[in-house]
Amino acid sequence: MADMKSTFLDVYSTLKTDLLHDPAFEFTHESRQWLERMLDYNVPGGKLNRGLSVVDSYKLLKQGQDLTQEEVFLSCALGWCIEWLQAYFLVLDDIMDNSVTRRSQPCWFRKPQVGMIAINDGILLRNHIHRILKKHFRGKPYYVDLVDLFNEVEFQTASGQMIDLITTFDGEKDLSKYSLQIHRRIVQYKTAYYSFYLPVACALLMAGENLENHADVKNVLVDMGIYFQVQDDYLDCFADPETLGKIGTDIEDFKCSWLVVKALERCSEKQTKILYENYGKSEPSNVAKVKALYKELDLEAAFMEYEKESYEKLKKLIEAHQSKEIQAVLKSFLAKIYKRQK
Amino acid sequence: MADMKSTFLDVYSTLKTDLLHDPAFEFTHESRQWLERMLDYNVPGGKLNRGLSVVDSYKLLKQGQDLTQEEVFLSCALGWCIEWLQAYFLVLDDIMDNSVTRRSQPCWFRKPQVGMIAINDGILLRNHIHRILKKHFRGKPYYVDLVDLFNEVEFQTASGQMIDLITTFDGEKDLSKYSLQIHRRIVQYKTAYYSFYLPVACALLMAGENLENHADVKNVLVDMGIYFQVQDDYLDCFADPETLGKIGTDIEDFKCSWLVVKALERCSEKQTKILYENYGKSEPSNVAKVKALYKELDLEAAFMEYEKESYEKLKKLIEAHQSKEIQAVLKSFLAKIYKRQK
Ligand SMILES: [Mg+2]
Ligand SMILES: [Mg+2]
Ligand SMILES: [Mg+2]
Ligand SMILES: [Mg+2]
Ligand SMILES: [Mg+2]
Ligand SMILES: [Mg+2]
Repeated sequence: MADMKSTFLDVYSTLKTDLLHDPAFEFTHESRQWLERMLDYNVPGGKLNRGLSVVDSYKLLKQGQDLTQEEVFLSCALGWCIEWLQAYFLVLDDIMDNSVTRRSQPCWFRKPQVGMIAINDGILLRNHIHRILKKHFRGKPYYVDLVDLFNEVEFQTASGQMIDLITTFDGEKDLSKYSLQIHRRIVQYKTAYYSFYLPVACALLMAGENLENHADVKNVLVDMGIYFQVQDDYLDCFADPETLGKIGTDIEDFKCSWLVVKALERCSEKQTKILYENYGKSEPSNVAKVKALYKELDLEAAFMEYEKESYEKLKKLIEAHQSKEIQAVLKSFLAKIYKRQK
Repeated sequence: MADMKSTFLDVYSTLKTDLLHDPAFEFTHESRQWLERMLDYNVPGGKLNRGLSVVDSYKLLKQGQDLTQEEVFLSCALGWCIEWLQAYFLVLDDIMDNSVTRRSQPCWFRKPQVGMIAINDGILLRNHIHRILKKHFRGKPYYVDLVDLFNEVEFQTASGQMIDLITTFDGEKDLSKYSLQIHRRIVQYKTAYYSFYLPVACALLMAGENLENHADVKNVLVDMGIYFQVQDDYLDCFADPETLGKIGTDIEDFKCSWLVVKALERCSEKQTKILYENYGKSEPSNVAKVKALYKELDLEAAFMEYEKESYEKLKKLIEAHQSKEIQAVLKSFLAKIYKRQK
């Protein structure tokens, strides 16, 4: 496994070198330098979970057979396409959210000499996906499905981002727009498709499967992605920051978090008033009042219940699947996230 | 022709309605409203030259045969894909350039309640191209080539934008980075591929042609695109603002214009000094000094000479082409831009 990660990182170097010498563009020395720095800053520094899970899933679909060198390379390349997609979204999301840090370094647009050029860098990251797909997959029978898949998932993610942006920022802060229903929609589109469905869909295509026959796999993974984001929202407030590796700021940021929509559901009139008065403000006293209300409403127990129910529902859906290989893929995703602490 | 424009606009309405009811996303009422307003604001308000030229070119390739209703619809839809691509680039370019107006209205990101959400709107515009292609062209034998074409041209445009941004904005203003060579590169990638090559390439694909057999067509159109941009640079300074419909600001904006690179080529040491001291400043006295220098160096004559040479070279290349239909397409492009005053 440690070995697979180093193979995966080697593939990054190969893909980067290709992109820096793409014959479809005449690089100047300065633009090649710029691009290399931009890629190294934004693409490989994450946890790489999404990317590595393409390789893992493909192996499970192949029932643990040894992969050929080509299969290893191609599944890593698809994994990197997802990491590139993620980098693209994050570079632009940080500008839209006016964020300060990402992966414990300044956001790319905050770097001197970058600024709004980061918008075009985001666009380039997105375009690289199709350069990689074209170079390495153009001759494969599943090429057109792969391109359609990336385009559809990108569309869904940007659409989820749209409802997130217009719900959260539209004029003044207005909690009355938040509900479980809108939370589910934001999370499903903005996160679940690209983080959970896309890696498995890539592996299925490489294994020769037709995605139209796998609507059930998509549904399970989308549900898992929603569960994952609810955990994320919960941990943002209730996890030990030491373990989590960051200090949550969803309350300050007026996020449409699962906790706040669950709170709204359970609040008395008086409690609703407290929430409206304190949510989305950065002073510690306001945050403390929201946290006290979350305790009062016993959102920890609500989350435990949600987690248990989700897990059981997902497990049942997975066990009902006719293919043992696909069951193994889905179980491995579920095992990685169930009761996670960070 | 007036009729074709109204047909073209009808197709916009159809495509927009499809996008507002795309089954790949669950719209909320607010997000559907947002999207409709965003599309109407940014997509149809330009001159539509690029889009309409797909229909015109396709007709010429068909030797003036009457097009079927399906052919009219599909060529219009491809024309709109180019207009969508243009809208996407302009929405983002205006943010990066910190521009104020576009098509005589405020830039989209300057509208109240929009701001940085415009970045995601740009992304959505880009994604719509593939939604349109998938809905209407998925069953066509040339579908995969069409998707590859749009992806490649987008990549080239973003790459041209990258060298434009890093050449123009990198730290302090530095004229020594400007040359005919870098001007040609910026213009070729940032403008020529999507404005000149892409419409014809779309028409060729619809007509069943393999683009690999048409490298010569690409070269002619890219050269025409460069010529078009040189005209644009020339008119920015020398055209009557009344006729041009706007007041040029390339000198104030420190643009890598054909005029400044041509001037640098012709300047004495003393004149170079004047250019360095006055280019890229917004005070009228600085601008006036640059304009006086342009007159002194007789850039008007240099442009006339460039225009004549370009025209003759392009005409020769076109007449050497073996296909009369393709000649007709290329000639119609050239006729539209030769000696244009706006
Ligand atoms: Mg963010
Ligand atoms: Mg955000
Ligand atoms: Mg979070
Ligand atoms: Mg601009
Ligand atoms: Mg610009
Ligand atoms: Mg201009």
